[in-house]
Order: sequence, then structure tokens, then C-alpha cells
Amino acid sequence: SDESRPGGGRVQELYVYEINERDRGSPAILKLSQKPVFSLGDLIPFTNKLYTGDLQKRLGITAGICIEIQHNEEKQGDRYEAIFSFYFGDYGHIAVQGPYITYQDSFLAVTGGSGVFEGVYGKVKLHNVVYPWKIFYTFYLQGIKDLPDELVVKPAEPKPDVEPHPSAKACEPGFTVVNYTN
Amino acid sequence: SDESRPGGGRVQELYVYEINERDRGSPAILKLSQKPVFSLGDLIPFTNKLYTGDLQKRLGITAGICIEIQHNEEKQGDRYEAIFSFYFGDYGHIAVQGPYITYQDSFLAVTGGSGVFEGVYGKVKLHNVVYPWKIFYTFYLQGIKDLPDELVVKPAEPKPDVEPHPSAKACEPGFTVVNYTN
Amino acid sequence: SDESRPGGGRVQELYVYEINERDRGSPAILKLSQKPVFSLGDLIPFTNKLYTGDLQKRLGITAGICIEIQHNEEKQGDRYEAIFSFYFGDYGHIAVQGPYITYQDSFLAVTGGSGVFEGVYGKVKLHNVVYPWKIFYTFYLQGIKDLPDELVVKPAEPKPDVEPHPSAKACEPGFTVVNYTN
Repeated sequence: SDESRPGGGRVQELYVYEINERDRGSPAILKLSQKPVFSLGDLIPFTNKLYTGDLQKRLGITAGICIEIQHNEEKQGDRYEAIFSFYFGDYGHIAVQGPYITYQDSFLAVTGGSGVFEGVYGKVKLHNVVYPWKIFYTFYLQGIKDLPDELVVKPAEPKPDVEPHPSAKACEPGFTVVNYTN
Repeated sequence: SDESRPGGGRVQELYVYEINERDRGSPAILKLSQKPVFSLGDLIPFTNKLYTGDLQKRLGITAGICIEIQHNEEKQGDRYEAIFSFYFGDYGHIAVQGPYITYQDSFLAVTGGSGVFEGVYGKVKLHNVVYPWKIFYTFYLQGIKDLPDELVVKPAEPKPDVEPHPSAKACEPGFTVVNYTN
Repeated sequence: SDESRPGGGRVQELYVYEINERDRGSPAILKLSQKPVFSLGDLIPFTNKLYTGDLQKRLGITAGICIEIQHNEEKQGDRYEAIFSFYFGDYGHIAVQGPYITYQDSFLAVTGGSGVFEGVYGKVKLHNVVYPWKIFYTFYLQGIKDLPDELVVKPAEPKPDVEPHPSAKACEPGFTVVNYTN
């Protein structure tokens, strides 16, 4: 029989916050459609900061691109096809692809990973907390060994006023994972 | 032993049509190479409509980008690296990556999915029916449970004159999947 | 039990060289950030040549895009999010996503494949040999049957002066895989 996938079919949940602290020049809004409102043709590369779900540790960054698919005038929002990675310092990275919809939650596909996430598959739920500055993600991961204890935390409730611990925000010793991505 | 992947190694085929009905502002041809013919540097975001293989139901949309790789003067066509998703309404989505060649069939990799496609892997055959308006896809899917009956259909033969059922085109009740993506 | 994944959990290593021979108009540097140094917003589609790890055979090409994430002034280099495929002629392709960092090695995720790589997962190590002209990759592949003998070679040591065999560079008979991608 095939012993190739660790985890025995168990789904592990992983919670993280992505926060745009406006100090990375992100997002870059490329208005290539040459139309007044967001339209197919516009591209939005981005890179934000990544924290553990309890906001006590800085993990790293996100990095990738949102491809504008459709502006929704009624909901004053947009559907994007998002292709990006989550970086967790020495723990490695997770690559994802799927919908980012500014006015509702969505599920993206987990397409692969490295480090402790090598061989990973599954999905991730994207929950807009404060558009476009704070996003809360719940990963449902399979195909990997037990997640490191440091990543398994009780998440802070995704309310608009959630903030990273000041020491995590300042990347002080003990408030980051090892070699956090920056 | 590893019980993690449903499907027991069985390959399930799934047929769909992607049709550009010219009402979504797609594709957006970004001539960023600044060269007269299509060249590396040109990008083509796109979003088209997706129907079941028998063209009796509207499923949703495609969404993603074609990256121009090489213009073939002799064949008057192009090779693109295509990165996009297929959306199936409440059934979820499938993410793919690979070659789109305007003058021949190709296989793309299935890189992940959500909903009934969570944990999916495999490949998809892309068959140009009427370039660039109609494409017929045959997915070869693994790692998932039995596909919903609604998606398992006898495909319409991929001839140039195939058209969606008028009621599917009009998204009338009974002629779409639940909450079809639009 | 699940018999779906070939390879029995074994990791197969695959070595390849990516070489920019400056005859494919690659890379296309799209300075869309409108800033003087590389910055978020710049995009770099690319396509280079691919050789076996012993540099005795031409395999095909790479094809995809680097999304600038962060310029590192101190290291005079850049972090990119890279999304691309490796093409191996009739053997199929491998899709990857992850970090390309011009001043250090990195690991990318293998997100899928076709042909002999259908159902593949794992990671790939990217090693800069001569930036940005020569890159040496070590794939760690799972989920597939034994690689074809032709692809299993003793790699040439990744030194700056490594060059493809002249007959491979010229794509002479016997010095390419079948229907090498070009």
C-alpha cells in the first residue's frame, strides 16, 4: 500500500493573519485596463505581513498577484484570481490559487509547499476582516506531518480592531519564528 | 496505511466547454512587449463562461492569465503559459497551470481545488474547437470522491458549431448548477 | 487502502540546468512600477532553455513569470515570486511556485505536472550558478513512477563555466529528448 502521504488523511487547521502595515509599498495597483473603474486587465502585485493566528508572533510575508476578473458595481467590490504564497521563515512556504472577492469570504486551493509544508494539499478559507488591510485565513491542510507547536495556536477573534502584539510587530526576539521572512 | 486520498487511484473524467460570448470584456490584451507581433512580455488576463460537457447547464466561469511565451510565425499562432481556475458555482473550483498553444492540443497540470475538488490532482486536456472562442476540456481527476451526477455527462462532440442550450446560455432555472459562478 | 500514488513515498531526485542563451528575447523586463530601482509592480515574464543535469541533452524550455516582491539594496538583489513550468518534450511538464531570490538558494513548491509527471508533488531547490544566466535545479519528486532512464543522470558540478554539450546546444539528433520543447 501507499505509505507516501503523512498525516493519515487527517486535516490540520492553521490560522494566520495577513496585515498590510503600509510600509512595504504594497499593493502595486497596475491600472493596465485603461478603464476608469477596476476592470479585467488590471493587475495588483502585493506583499503583506504574516502573523500567527493569535497575533503573538511574526511569521513572514505574503507574496503574489491579484488578477482583476470582474468589478461588481452593485456591491462596490471586485473578484480577483489570486496566485500567491505564504512565507513562514525557516518553516517554509505554502502556495495557493483561487478567488479573492472583496465583499465575501472565499476558499482558495493549496497547490503545494516547502519545508514543513512539503507535499501539502488542501484548501484555505479567506475571511476579510478590514478590507483591504486585514485578512484572517484558516488553512485545512493534509499530506503533512504534525504542524510545529509554535504554529498551532488559539486564534484571536477576527474583529476589526485586532492588532499584532507590539513586540511581534517590532519583530523582537521571542516574538518571531526563526528567520522570519521579511 | 495511508487512507488519505479518496478515489482509490481511480481516474474520473470530467468534460467542460469554455466559451467566450464576448460579453465579459475578455480577453484583455496587454501589449506590454511594445513589439508589433505577440512577443514575450505580452499578458492576456481572461474570463470566459463555463458549461457542462453536454452544454445543457451553465457551470460558471474561467478566470486567470495567459503569459505569452513565443509567437510562431510559421503556424501563425502562439504558445502561452496559462495559469487559471475553473469555477463550478457551489461545487467549488479547480486550479490549473500549463501550456496553451493556439494551434494544437495540450495538457495542463491540475494543481488543486476547493469544494468537491478539494485535494484534487491530475491533468486536463485542452482542445481548441474554434480559436479563440470555444475550447473543450477533458479533465483526468484523482484524489477526490465520486463527482456529483450533475457533472458526469456525455459530452457534445466538439464541432465548430456546438452551442450551449439557449436556456443554459440564459441561465434559466434548471439550466445552471446551484449558485453558478458569474 | 489507497493505492493511488505511485512511488511508494520514495523521493526521486531530478537535476536540470536552465540556461539563458540570449536568443529567445528573454527575459522581458516590464518596469510597470514606474520606479527607478526594481520594485513591487515590476513583472518579468521569461523563457529559457532546459538541459539534463549532465548537460548532454536538450530537454526543452522554462516558461512563466517572476513577480518582483522586494528589492534588497544591501545585497544588490531581489526577491521574486516565481510561477512557471519546466517543459521536457514528450515527457511532459512540471509546474512550480515559490521564491526566486537572486542572491541565495531557495526552495519552490512543485504544484503539478503532466506526462510522466502527472500527479507529481514535492519541491525543487534553485541554485544560482551565474546570475541571471545559469540556474541549477534539484527536484525532489514524489507521487510518480520511476523516472525515465534518460532523465536520471549524474549532474555536472554547478560551476560558473559549465556549458551544454555543443551538440545538445545545437539540438542534434541523439542530443535531445524526443520532441524537445522549443
